[in-house]
Amino acid sequence: MQTVLKGATREATIDTEGQAVIVGERINPTGRKKLAAALQAGDMALVLESAAAQVAAGAEVLDINVGVPGLDDVAVLPRVVTVVAEAMGVPICIDTPNPAALAAALKVVPGKPLVNSVNGEEASLRSVLPLVKDRGAAVIGLTMDDNGIPMDAESRVKVAGKILERAAKLGIPAADVIIDPLVLTVGADSRAGVVTLATIERVRKEFGVSLNLGASNVSFGLPDRHTINQAFLALAVGRGANCLITDPGKLAGIIRATDLLLGRDEYAARYIAYFRALPKVTV
Amino acid sequence: MQTVLKGATREATIDTEGQAVIVGERINPTGRKKLAAALQAGDMALVLESAAAQVAAGAEVLDINVGVPGLDDVAVLPRVVTVVAEAMGVPICIDTPNPAALAAALKVVPGKPLVNSVNGEEASLRSVLPLVKDRGAAVIGLTMDDNGIPMDAESRVKVAGKILERAAKLGIPAADVIIDPLVLTVGADSRAGVVTLATIERVRKEFGVSLNLGASNVSFGLPDRHTINQAFLALAVGRGANCLITDPGKLAGIIRATDLLLGRDEYAARYIAYFRALPKVTV
Repeated sequence: MQTVLKGATREATIDTEGQAVIVGERINPTGRKKLAAALQAGDMALVLESAAAQVAAGAEVLDINVGVPGLDDVAVLPRVVTVVAEAMGVPICIDTPNPAALAAALKVVPGKPLVNSVNGEEASLRSVLPLVKDRGAAVIGLTMDDNGIPMDAESRVKVAGKILERAAKLGIPAADVIIDPLVLTVGADSRAGVVTLATIERVRKEFGVSLNLGASNVSFGLPDRHTINQAFLALAVGRGANCLITDPGKLAGIIRATDLLLGRDEYAARYIAYFRALPKVTV
Repeated sequence: MQTVLKGATREATIDTEGQAVIVGERINPTGRKKLAAALQAGDMALVLESAAAQVAAGAEVLDINVGVPGLDDVAVLPRVVTVVAEAMGVPICIDTPNPAALAAALKVVPGKPLVNSVNGEEASLRSVLPLVKDRGAAVIGLTMDDNGIPMDAESRVKVAGKILERAAKLGIPAADVIIDPLVLTVGADSRAGVVTLATIERVRKEFGVSLNLGASNVSFGLPDRHTINQAFLALAVGRGANCLITDPGKLAGIIRATDLLLGRDEYAARYIAYFRALPKVTV
């Protein structure tokens, strides 16, 4: 099963049988004070620098989040989306919890974007899915609902099924819904990794759809977080995750290596391309 | 299924349901000129330094290989085994292709050692398994036979079955046979990783036994070998490998992180212990 995201000039194919696609996560002001200040000042230089570094490091799609308290995201999100989409050419992942900002960004974004995200809550399903359908976008579906994040894989699989069913009713094909199994921190609950990995495996088996993962939460509060993030990405891709919202400057290597070891990289061509790009990825 | 290896004072449990056991690979003169020279001179200082560093970094068992051309391994192997076993207390993995050296080392090694290795060749089965049985040791069984290393998982699983059957006939229990699926270099054959991972999964499913892996071959000839080795260990442990012959100074982190993410490390206790040991592991 596959969906082809489209940017101004480039495409990205998210394919359950293909190589993992990296969605660059760095255009997000959470924990990045300079980026937050630049967004508030309307200065696009840092955003574009981050965009270019991520694409050089292997991002095929760029996530854009402008969540700064007090910022008018309905005005700012479309502007940043437009600037990045035109400058980089890659497909955009529009990352906002605000349906009004999402609607505004969807009006200006070129091609076929990815929407981050819908979840199983009634309010989310009702506000986000019609926008996704009208625009012909793809969407990330988080496995949580009005009861919160389920602690077991079975319940998360049920939420995934609910999102897919509601999308289908509106005419959004399953190929355009990328399920995110969510991951809690393994330092707080030693079952956190197992539940997420089991959800990936079961959602793929039951529905055959693509699976997205944002991996960095899993290591929160533990030492040497990078090693945990690496192990988790390898395990998750090994179980079926094929879309990864992450920092390619830090984690493209383990993702390319995993695809190589899973037999998805003939002549190690993509792995070697990652290595050749390494000197450029220090931003 | 589990086997408990015993050293002079310490034990190591290789358990299909438990945490992965690291067998330190560094006492091996291949590619280590100084160690080769020290072994030829009968100088044990470097061997003991390497032994101590590996145990500090997380090795629960130490592999000992004295394969230097021209060296009398029948005399030297028992001596090195004795010195390391007494100094470190951990169980020993006796690593030699020479049955006479193996027999000599088995006479002096304390506790219950691991023998590295038997394979499916008739000559190997006939010479190694009786020594393993007489000594009550455990043994690593490599999935190759008189026809070489099979290129597909199904044939490797068959060789594993043959080794287990021959061991059983001599009265060696399956718990004491640790199957090694072997791994070729992924740079030469992009299917190499897939075949090994599939063999791990199928051997575990079919026979329920422990699986050993020596991971570093997989990355031969490629850049940034460490990242490939990390990804491979995470994938292999994720599929069922539970005994890893490796360099703990470099790879204990990814192994501990993988166990943590697979729900085998309550309160992240072992992972944090790995991290605390980090400053000691620079030898």
